[in-house]
Amino acid sequence: MDELPPPRHLLDWQYLSDDIWQRCLTRTLEHYHQGKQAWSQVARHRSLGLLFFNPSLRTRTSMELAAVQLGAHATTLVIGQGTWQLEWRDGVVMDGAAAEHIREAIGVLSQYYDALGVRIFASQTDYEQDREERLLNAIARAATVPVINLESAFYHPCQALADAATILDHLDGSVQRRRFVLSWAYHPRALPMAVPNSALLMAARLGMEVVVAHPPGFELDEGVLARAQADAAARGGRVTVVHDQAEAFDGAAIVYAKSWGSRLYYTSPEEEAALRQQYRHWRVTPELMARTRQAAFMHCLPVRRNVVVDDAVLDSPQAIHLKQAAFRLYAQKAILEYVWHLPPFDS
Amino acid sequence: MDELPPPRHLLDWQYLSDDIWQRCLTRTLEHYHQGKQAWSQVARHRSLGLLFFNPSLRTRTSMELAAVQLGAHATTLVIGQGTWQLEWRDGVVMDGAAAEHIREAIGVLSQYYDALGVRIFASQTDYEQDREERLLNAIARAATVPVINLESAFYHPCQALADAATILDHLDGSVQRRRFVLSWAYHPRALPMAVPNSALLMAARLGMEVVVAHPPGFELDEGVLARAQADAAARGGRVTVVHDQAEAFDGAAIVYAKSWGSRLYYTSPEEEAALRQQYRHWRVTPELMARTRQAAFMHCLPVRRNVVVDDAVLDSPQAIHLKQAAFRLYAQKAILEYVWHLPPFDS
Amino acid sequence: MDELPPPRHLLDWQYLSDDIWQRCLTRTLEHYHQGKQAWSQVARHRSLGLLFFNPSLRTRTSMELAAVQLGAHATTLVIGQGTWQLEWRDGVVMDGAAAEHIREAIGVLSQYYDALGVRIFASQTDYEQDREERLLNAIARAATVPVINLESAFYHPCQALADAATILDHLDGSVQRRRFVLSWAYHPRALPMAVPNSALLMAARLGMEVVVAHPPGFELDEGVLARAQADAAARGGRVTVVHDQAEAFDGAAIVYAKSWGSRLYYTSPEEEAALRQQYRHWRVTPELMARTRQAAFMHCLPVRRNVVVDDAVLDSPQAIHLKQAAFRLYAQKAILEYVWHLPPFDS
Repeated sequence: MDELPPPRHLLDWQYLSDDIWQRCLTRTLEHYHQGKQAWSQVARHRSLGLLFFNPSLRTRTSMELAAVQLGAHATTLVIGQGTWQLEWRDGVVMDGAAAEHIREAIGVLSQYYDALGVRIFASQTDYEQDREERLLNAIARAATVPVINLESAFYHPCQALADAATILDHLDGSVQRRRFVLSWAYHPRALPMAVPNSALLMAARLGMEVVVAHPPGFELDEGVLARAQADAAARGGRVTVVHDQAEAFDGAAIVYAKSWGSRLYYTSPEEEAALRQQYRHWRVTPELMARTRQAAFMHCLPVRRNVVVDDAVLDSPQAIHLKQAAFRLYAQKAILEYVWHLPPFDS
Repeated sequence: MDELPPPRHLLDWQYLSDDIWQRCLTRTLEHYHQGKQAWSQVARHRSLGLLFFNPSLRTRTSMELAAVQLGAHATTLVIGQGTWQLEWRDGVVMDGAAAEHIREAIGVLSQYYDALGVRIFASQTDYEQDREERLLNAIARAATVPVINLESAFYHPCQALADAATILDHLDGSVQRRRFVLSWAYHPRALPMAVPNSALLMAARLGMEVVVAHPPGFELDEGVLARAQADAAARGGRVTVVHDQAEAFDGAAIVYAKSWGSRLYYTSPEEEAALRQQYRHWRVTPELMARTRQAAFMHCLPVRRNVVVDDAVLDSPQAIHLKQAAFRLYAQKAILEYVWHLPPFDS
Repeated sequence: MDELPPPRHLLDWQYLSDDIWQRCLTRTLEHYHQGKQAWSQVARHRSLGLLFFNPSLRTRTSMELAAVQLGAHATTLVIGQGTWQLEWRDGVVMDGAAAEHIREAIGVLSQYYDALGVRIFASQTDYEQDREERLLNAIARAATVPVINLESAFYHPCQALADAATILDHLDGSVQRRRFVLSWAYHPRALPMAVPNSALLMAARLGMEVVVAHPPGFELDEGVLARAQADAAARGGRVTVVHDQAEAFDGAAIVYAKSWGSRLYYTSPEEEAALRQQYRHWRVTPELMARTRQAAFMHCLPVRRNVVVDDAVLDSPQAIHLKQAAFRLYAQKAILEYVWHLPPFDS
């Protein structure tokens, strides 16, 4: 077998240079300005396999269309629906529910497709496994074609790129010294941390004044926080953490709402729920928005209306969540161009 | 944001002019005569999102192929399978099962796709909601691209267009004064009324002698019936309702069999079932067909053999249900051309 | 209606001539050497409907891509997921779970698609039904377009063609007098016999020295065995059956591992399981492989690691199961060319 260069994965932006990030961002904005009618054939005779271990609406449709609009073919596979369950641990005696190991599944799909998009959420029971991205990394190791992270245990790089482009477009590029609030919100379920982690790192990388607001007990990962602080500092920004939602909103240019579960009770759902339910009032309201400098409201979606954020905010002109979702399509076109060495990423 | 003209929805034919209906009908027949090998690129660089809140075989495949044969891309989404449940009520506190509101879901998909096909059946528990098409209308309001009704609570306009074209083709265009029998049939489940409503309105619009035959207690909606009677009268036809299946078949040119549940017990399934089971003998048999003028047998499918209709009818040359299903593909090509302003609907 | 020639089905190779088999084999190898980047438009304006009554990963993706890489469109339908259940028995009163008969479902889909791929596994409760391929045959009778068997009760011809091409490629075409071992292996579930039947017949057709190794009670069908013996004899090979796994491996060039359930207890799952569990030690190990002449290890996948075969075998250079899976794509391109009368099958 020929010795091939390793495939260009997109597992998370932390593994890629600032130059690649900047070029992807520029390219995303170019695609956005060309609009959804701008189809091409630059990726013709290529195919993208999309593996969803978890549900999806936006990611599935926007990723499929990103491929198709570049001239490629895309297949969506929902694991466990019309397929069997997959095993991913090494060395295990496979006499349980899983009929196939990801080594074979990913090894085979690598021979059919030219890239694989993979969504595999956090276990929410094993924090070390989630933090170390063991599942996504195992998949990337088994793949011989690029793997694109469509939301893993800890990161959501497609969302991060779309979010950064949305912010740059909304603020006309002047993000320095503007306040970005990542605000925890109540949600009936303990949600994973991939989106808050990625949103925090994204805003830090833009060099914004990042404020993370959450109730005590909902601390984000120290490693992620330290990286965000270093990234922000290197670009003239900074990251602070507060426990007062109202204070955080003061003077904000961007409010990014997101719920996540508490790490303190990662393996005790009942205790986690008891803690979380004390903070049902953490909801984005018109009153909170009034404290901002006419901040744009962002959310990665899906969003629970009147739980995470009031109708009055979502239905106001300040809400740019639909535009933010639209950017997913354009960000993912840029990502496919990157992993497939297509122009402008061919040099 | 630019002020855009409202999208061309296809929610039901009642909202569209006779001229549009006639042109769609003509176009459907043209597509039929060109056959399934006639592909084009008139809709290239367009995409169609298909949302199924309920199961489908024919609609899903024929709609997908209609788009593809015009050069467009189509994605099928089964809501709740690989996606989450959607909320559609306004103002609700979303702390239940639904993770996303249709305002967001449809708002986002409108930014990815160039049209949305939606199948959302009747609640069969709230007659006013069903009759007023509250769900489909909420989706249409949230959409910024055309919405095509793939069977809603009360109407199935894609089926109606295909059915009308089938009848015109079968009777060589001479439908005036020909008897169209819409015959209720027994079925083990209480089925919704979208197909009988649309079949009745379709035959009335063709100006046929329409006879609706059903047992007492299975009355169709008064509003639908009144509209059908007015439409038929305006075209030299008429609509009558009888409770005797055999009498209805006398001299028929078209027999259209369909089951539906009783409105009398819309919220009492047990009572509804008890009433319905008294009419198990309402089944289309060779004996009934012998009373017709060699009528064609039609059914929208899926059909339960030997419950709704006998094998001997379905397997006879009089049955044109497969041709009727074939017309779905061609009708939907015409509908896509209409909603997308493609020739011959571009002027 | 015009009298059409019967469609070219691919139900099993036994119904096709040696010449067709050879040409398909040659064509599969040609596609393999052109690689997954070799797309064409030879099947443009054609469409393939894929019906899965059972789960699939490889077959679904490789078949879809085979069609797409030839320029056709493919739709995947998982029966019972977003569709309703289908009835296939003739003359039945359909008042149960199934809402539609395959006569209608297949009759309709034949009018939309240009070929139908169908996966429908063995009942594993009615051996005569399974052996006679009643389900697949009923579908083929209802179809007016080619039907491709994507694994039926008794045969898996797509796998057989891919396997034969893999072996020819691996052994540089010299298969005569080389030992092919079809080795039963333990598996926690009673699996159907389509793959072992097809693997046995394939190796016999290549004229190899075929050894079938299985524990007593796991005999393959006499009819299949007799056909394999006749096929092998006609090509200078032979088929023997042994109950000693180690002896079978001696001098083997190809080891093909596969589990299947016992026919002795086709309708008694508990008794079948009790018999099967006595043979948990039937697992392909490095020790067994050491008895071969550096045999290649093959498996149709999915495979349970450390149950059917050890990690040390699967992760060794002798394992060619991923290449074998890659051949599925190329075999199915050849099969589509055959059923659609495309070059080189157009004369």
